[in-house]
Parts: sequence; C-alpha cells; structure tokens
Amino acid sequence: MIFLNGKYLSKDDAKISVMDRGFLFGDGVYEVIPVYQKKIFSLEEHLQRLHANLQELDITNPYDNSEWENIFTEIIKHSSFEQEAIYLQVTRGVMNTRTHYQENLYPTVFVESNKISNRDNNEIYAGYSAITEKDERWSKCHIKSISLLANVLSIKNAKKNNVEEVIFIRDGVITEGASSNVFIVKNNQVFTHPKNNLILPGITREISIRILQDLNIEVFENSFTEEEMMSADEIWITSSTREILPITSVNSKKIQSGKAGPLWEKVYLSYQSIKNG
Amino acid sequence: MIFLNGKYLSKDDAKISVMDRGFLFGDGVYEVIPVYQKKIFSLEEHLQRLHANLQELDITNPYDNSEWENIFTEIIKHSSFEQEAIYLQVTRGVMNTRTHYQENLYPTVFVESNKISNRDNNEIYAGYSAITEKDERWSKCHIKSISLLANVLSIKNAKKNNVEEVIFIRDGVITEGASSNVFIVKNNQVFTHPKNNLILPGITREISIRILQDLNIEVFENSFTEEEMMSADEIWITSSTREILPITSVNSKKIQSGKAGPLWEKVYLSYQSIKNG
Repeated sequence: MIFLNGKYLSKDDAKISVMDRGFLFGDGVYEVIPVYQKKIFSLEEHLQRLHANLQELDITNPYDNSEWENIFTEIIKHSSFEQEAIYLQVTRGVMNTRTHYQENLYPTVFVESNKISNRDNNEIYAGYSAITEKDERWSKCHIKSISLLANVLSIKNAKKNNVEEVIFIRDGVITEGASSNVFIVKNNQVFTHPKNNLILPGITREISIRILQDLNIEVFENSFTEEEMMSADEIWITSSTREILPITSVNSKKIQSGKAGPLWEKVYLSYQSIKNG
Repeated sequence: MIFLNGKYLSKDDAKISVMDRGFLFGDGVYEVIPVYQKKIFSLEEHLQRLHANLQELDITNPYDNSEWENIFTEIIKHSSFEQEAIYLQVTRGVMNTRTHYQENLYPTVFVESNKISNRDNNEIYAGYSAITEKDERWSKCHIKSISLLANVLSIKNAKKNNVEEVIFIRDGVITEGASSNVFIVKNNQVFTHPKNNLILPGITREISIRILQDLNIEVFENSFTEEEMMSADEIWITSSTREILPITSVNSKKIQSGKAGPLWEKVYLSYQSIKNG
C-alpha cells in the first residue's frame, strides 16, 4: 500500500499526471526514513530537513508533523518488514501547460515503504569498496532534490565497477558519497566535510557525530583531500538505510590493512544500540 | 491529444506510474521542436541530439527517426496552432522498487504539442532584460536532462525580477542562459561559448552560426567574460521557441543605447525567412 495525494492505494494503481512537475522538471524533494520493528527512527530530524528543503524551493509543506506521522504509521501498519525505509516525495504539483516555473500549484505527495535488507555481519566487518569520481553535481547539494541524474549516473558507474559507493571529489577535497556522507579517521581523530551547500546534511552523519562526542572521540567537521583519505586509518560512509559502513578499499587500493577499523566498530555498535533503543 | 507509450490520449487521461524514473530521479531527457504552419522545423537536428543524449544515459532510443516523425505528425494534425512546439520526453522507465539505478527497463515516452505565442514586433525590437547569476548547475549541461531543478530555481528568480532570462556565469565566463544560448557582438564580430560540457548545444545556436557565416560575419565559438558582455555592442539569446531575441538590459544596466542592434536584426530576419521556408 502506498499514499498518494490523500489516498491509500495499491502501488499498481498509483498514477500521476504526465504534467506533474516532478516528472517534467525534477521539481521536488524527498526523504528516506528508517523504521525498525515498526518504530520510526529519527522522525523529527527528517521532517525538519524536509521542511527546510520545501522552504528552499518555495513549496508549502502540505502537512504538519503529526499529519506526516499519521501517514507513515498507516503505511507501515500495512507492511510486513522487520526493517524498512519510508520513502516520501513532494513535488511542486501538476501544471496545465509545461512552463519552467509556476506558483500556487497543489503539491503532489507520494509515500511508500520499502524493505531494508539485513546485511550479513561478516560482510559488514569485511568492509566495502568504493571508487572516486569528480563531483559533477550542482552546487546546491544540501537540497535533497529529486533532480538526481548526476547521482544516478555515478551509481550506475558504481554498479559497473561492482563497488558499494562512489566518493566525490570537488576542487581537491572529498565532499560526500553519491548517496552517503563520508568520514575518515586519522590518529583517533575523525573528520567529515562541513555542512554547507556541497553536501547533503545527513541524519546518520549527525547521529554519528553525536555518538563520537558521547564517546569522547574528537570529531572535526573539516574537509580533507583524496590523499588524506587514501592514507587514513579508517573510512566510513553513513546513510539512513546503510547506517555506518566501513570502506576498506578505494579505487582498488586497500585502506591500511583492508579491514574494518576499531573506531568504526565502536560507533557502529553504539548506533545499533540506539537504533534498537 | 498527447502521445504516451504508444497510445494517443487526451492530456487528462495521460497518467504515469509513481515508479517512473522520470518522477523519482529526473532520469530522462527531452526535446522541444518548433513547428511552423504544421511544418516541423530542424527535425533531424533535434532527433540527432535526442539520440546522443539517450546514448549518454544508456537508454535505448525506442523509435527510429521515421517513427518519431510519424508520432509528431499525428500529434500536430490534432492541434490548432499556427506556431507550436513539440515537447517530447524519454525516461529510463518504470521500476518495481525504488533503487538509484536499474537497467533494461522499457523507456517511457511522452509527446505533446504546445502553442508558441507570437511576440509583438515592437516588443522584440525594444529588446528584453536579463539578470546574471552564478552557474550553479552540474557540469554535464550538454545533456538535455529533465533533472532541471537548477534551471527552475533560476527561472523562478527571473520571473521574480520580471526579466526574460537569467544568464549564467561560471568561473568568470558567460556560459549560457537558463533556457537559451547567449551571443555577443563586439566590433562586428560575434562570440558565443564553445560547445562543451558546460552548455546545451542549441539547435538555434547552430542555425544562427550558419546564418552568420552565410552573411560573411565573423563568428567565434569563444567564451567571454561578464565585463566583455556588459560592454558588448549587442547581446542575443537563442532558443527553439524564442528564436533569436535581443537583450538590451542586464542587471538593470542598458547595453549600449538599450536598443536591438543592427547585426541582431540581420540574423533575426534571415532566421524568419528560413523558418517560413
């Protein structure tokens, strides 16, 4: 069951107009919110980011937080997943005639929920591979926009190379992954790109920073170069559905011993206990 | 009447799945092809660009040129416009489950036709206003992608400022407009940004260059700075639906006398005679 513009429908019946600005212009934003054993995780943070994104696009938030929560609750009530991710998308709405910009439309809202597959623990501890790519995206990456073609093409490249993630480099520094934030560890200090227009302010990024602070591990929101990343003690990626994953190989080169590191494990285990909360 | 995935439908009945990658990821390309008195203008050039764009995205072109032409002919047969623009969009297709990349889907094809309003001749000769903005788009602007949020936000800004176009500046040089190419004239020489990844290779841009060559006017595909543009003798923008328009004011500053220039008029009149063929 999915939610579309006020109605609960089967996915097969969920149709939108070809004149939806999401379809014609990628003119909308989205969120992905993890749900563990039917409990919505970090709901408030996601709804806050959604609200900020809608404001940036001048789209009126069609629902208040409790209305959103009611929709999500209804959706996950009808799913049979142990771990799932609510997907929600808001577009500027449907036009009569295609024109680049139009105001005062009624936003289109689509919500569904998808299973989050459990990763094998051995697989996680073995770590994942990544490749680097020039960051070719626009310079408003802080907006979680559905105009995702740049990310799509990078992830296509990741699949072709059989790696977990593409890590972007802009003007010499690592910004983030194609659908994750990137952390590195050097001498027990942790670094991640500062929040600005060049990265998506990830909720899992935020939670990871809080965990590190609680563990009294020094964490700096400072950018770092590709060379610094390649010689780091550990690399992690964070995202709402992938949580915190160790990257142990980049561009086919092992990072140190090529195994998940001890700091990653600490943060990962803390995250698991928060999530199972 | 519109065309959607092999069927001719009324626009109100033209619905796509919420799982279309156009709607979820902006994962598709489009074309806008002018039609004058039911004659399709520069058809081959547009279909050639469409084909190149689809190849870049690894989407199989669902039709050959004559099949495309048949669809367009059917669509414009049912319209009642003197001047119109065929809009066509191809997306990677419909998924079952949202995932950033998926291959071997069947492309979604949407085609419609919209009226091109006649501009008043006095208005054209009086010229139009523009503003400049930092080019915040991705660095694959040569792809005519439907991931258009950057352009949408700029055109929103143009409307707010009551101007015809936003002209983009990247690393100190003028690239193009939010939905047009940009030309300047200086001492009877014409300049426009070279074809590369930073601009859309406009068909009207191409036709304008050919007209200039036929008129024995020197034209250079060389980039130019904002300062060079502001002190130019003339500025033009070109697009398939706007043809060739003089820009006589930028950021509220008059360009020279603030009137359409003589070279613009020559090229404009040549374009009119080609178009009326």
